[in-house]
Amino acid sequence: MKFGINFFPTVAPDEKTGAAFYDECLQLCEQAEELGYSHVKTVEHYFSPWGGYSPDPVTFLAAAAQRTRRVRLVTGAVIPAFNHPIKLAGKLAMLDNLSHGRLDVGFARAFLPDEFEAFQTSMGESRPRFEEGIEAVRRLWTEEEFRFNGTFHQFGPHPALLPRPYQKPHPPVFVAATFNPVSFEWSGEHGYHLMIVPYLSTHERVAVLLDRYRKAWVDGGHAPGAEQVHLTYQCYVAEDSAEARRRGGALFEDYKAKQLQAVSAWRKYTSDQYPGYERLVDIIEAGTFADGMAEQKLLIGDPDEVAAQIEAIRGYHGNVEPSLQVNFGNMPMAEARRTVDLFARHVMPHFTGM
Amino acid sequence: MKFGINFFPTVAPDEKTGAAFYDECLQLCEQAEELGYSHVKTVEHYFSPWGGYSPDPVTFLAAAAQRTRRVRLVTGAVIPAFNHPIKLAGKLAMLDNLSHGRLDVGFARAFLPDEFEAFQTSMGESRPRFEEGIEAVRRLWTEEEFRFNGTFHQFGPHPALLPRPYQKPHPPVFVAATFNPVSFEWSGEHGYHLMIVPYLSTHERVAVLLDRYRKAWVDGGHAPGAEQVHLTYQCYVAEDSAEARRRGGALFEDYKAKQLQAVSAWRKYTSDQYPGYERLVDIIEAGTFADGMAEQKLLIGDPDEVAAQIEAIRGYHGNVEPSLQVNFGNMPMAEARRTVDLFARHVMPHFTGM
Repeated sequence: MKFGINFFPTVAPDEKTGAAFYDECLQLCEQAEELGYSHVKTVEHYFSPWGGYSPDPVTFLAAAAQRTRRVRLVTGAVIPAFNHPIKLAGKLAMLDNLSHGRLDVGFARAFLPDEFEAFQTSMGESRPRFEEGIEAVRRLWTEEEFRFNGTFHQFGPHPALLPRPYQKPHPPVFVAATFNPVSFEWSGEHGYHLMIVPYLSTHERVAVLLDRYRKAWVDGGHAPGAEQVHLTYQCYVAEDSAEARRRGGALFEDYKAKQLQAVSAWRKYTSDQYPGYERLVDIIEAGTFADGMAEQKLLIGDPDEVAAQIEAIRGYHGNVEPSLQVNFGNMPMAEARRTVDLFARHVMPHFTGM
Repeated sequence: MKFGINFFPTVAPDEKTGAAFYDECLQLCEQAEELGYSHVKTVEHYFSPWGGYSPDPVTFLAAAAQRTRRVRLVTGAVIPAFNHPIKLAGKLAMLDNLSHGRLDVGFARAFLPDEFEAFQTSMGESRPRFEEGIEAVRRLWTEEEFRFNGTFHQFGPHPALLPRPYQKPHPPVFVAATFNPVSFEWSGEHGYHLMIVPYLSTHERVAVLLDRYRKAWVDGGHAPGAEQVHLTYQCYVAEDSAEARRRGGALFEDYKAKQLQAVSAWRKYTSDQYPGYERLVDIIEAGTFADGMAEQKLLIGDPDEVAAQIEAIRGYHGNVEPSLQVNFGNMPMAEARRTVDLFARHVMPHFTGM
């Protein structure tokens, strides 16, 4: 079992400057590299303290590429709806070369109404934009003398996009999915790996969706077991269980308040293209720290407790790769560093090499 | 007088991989940092071996930020016509923070018809797109609760873009200009610094344009002498003058052939928005290595010869900051490294501290 780190920024300018936040994340990348973590990941969001410090994951990961030599660098995710495919394919290919082939590319549809409004893009078109964007990027990476005739973008013929990707035929592709069975099945069918935030659903529901994904993967002719599934969890580890719960709980509340603010437009918005999202605000609001702990959806506690939580997750979901949010909320650096250290020394050994 | 380095990639995939090219550039960044150069810079171009290895300068500079601590990181340039202003402002602000305030942002209109075609953007609109893009990015950096009502982009109101820039009120702004007096005057008026490729004009013509720029700068109420002017030159230094001319000449021809290919659409294209560009192919084609040397527009030779060339440039243009293309053409790394070393040890001392 492998474990990575997910930098999902949830800080506001009056809490931490961009420079301080990135410095900390880059130090955590070095620590992750040393301690045997498998990946570092960051997101694409705008304006809100929930994610907004990462309007361009490629920029951060290009810096991380120079502070590490082994860990995978993961976009979690990039958003075709907000990026021209030539631009996206080009900078991802640069990052793949800058990191000597350590790039995994996660793509997402995006789901925050405020972001679609800022980019003047219709949310109703987000699925076709997403699917077309992935296709365009893959073809830009692999084809020569390329012409593209999509619904949203047309270009070419022109020579091969430069630079050519380092990994052949191209970097592994992941898809971010949450509620929508269509996303899970579509990803499996196409042979795309998966990124999930399981917090918003029950374990049973996630298990059903993962089954549909894995069935579609095999039905699509892809090698059984070759699929990769990243599951994002908030993670806070301390030697003392009570301290972990107290601090983890406070930072959970900080994260939750920022998340609620970011998704608040969903109070007034519905879309048949986003089934279930009309309940998003309620689900987040109703989700207490105590419930999250009881339902084993938060990796928070002393090392033994967190190991037991991961054992449970493995029981539910099989061979998955947790992606740990170690600096959620306005997390002081010393606490993030301690989590990364304790997890690697006392939790990881239970699961690696098995 | 300060001296920087300009990585304008001119290699094709069958000559050098992206990974090898970036590795070399990053090593040259470290060397530049150690030897007292003032900046490292890279460009935004697509598809062609002339520039195409840099579809996103921010991605490369984010990596360079982690290999250096002192040198300025310069986009030379980014192109508003091909980038959404929210995206551009966001990733530049990330880079400003990742580098602790070492970012200088050069903006350009772009001029290759093939690139405008790929991005389905009208070349006739490139000036208003460029001007509006700079305005939008500056306002996204500096304003809160922001609303923008441009011709090409409208957005807001939304909260302040994150992260906020490290430099206050925002990173210094440069403008790339070549032939067009309007660009020079507009830049001066607005208090923008300047980036020029003087190779395509006579010294006299560049001097006239710079006069107009500096007059507009002062007339615009900006402090006389505070303007910064980067001049890009191909640079090849060897201990032996004949060797420098032989190798510099061969690499000049390689560069010229790739440049001609990239600008070839200008054979069939004219635009009143690009006065002078209908002659671009002829100018490049007619420009021989011998002429370039005779006219002191190439910094190629032994250290004494190159120092004399810079003395001449200073005489023509006053206080400018050369931006040296040290790996033009398919330059072997050892030769680029030698240029950077010899220039710093034997040429720079003539001009620094004066």
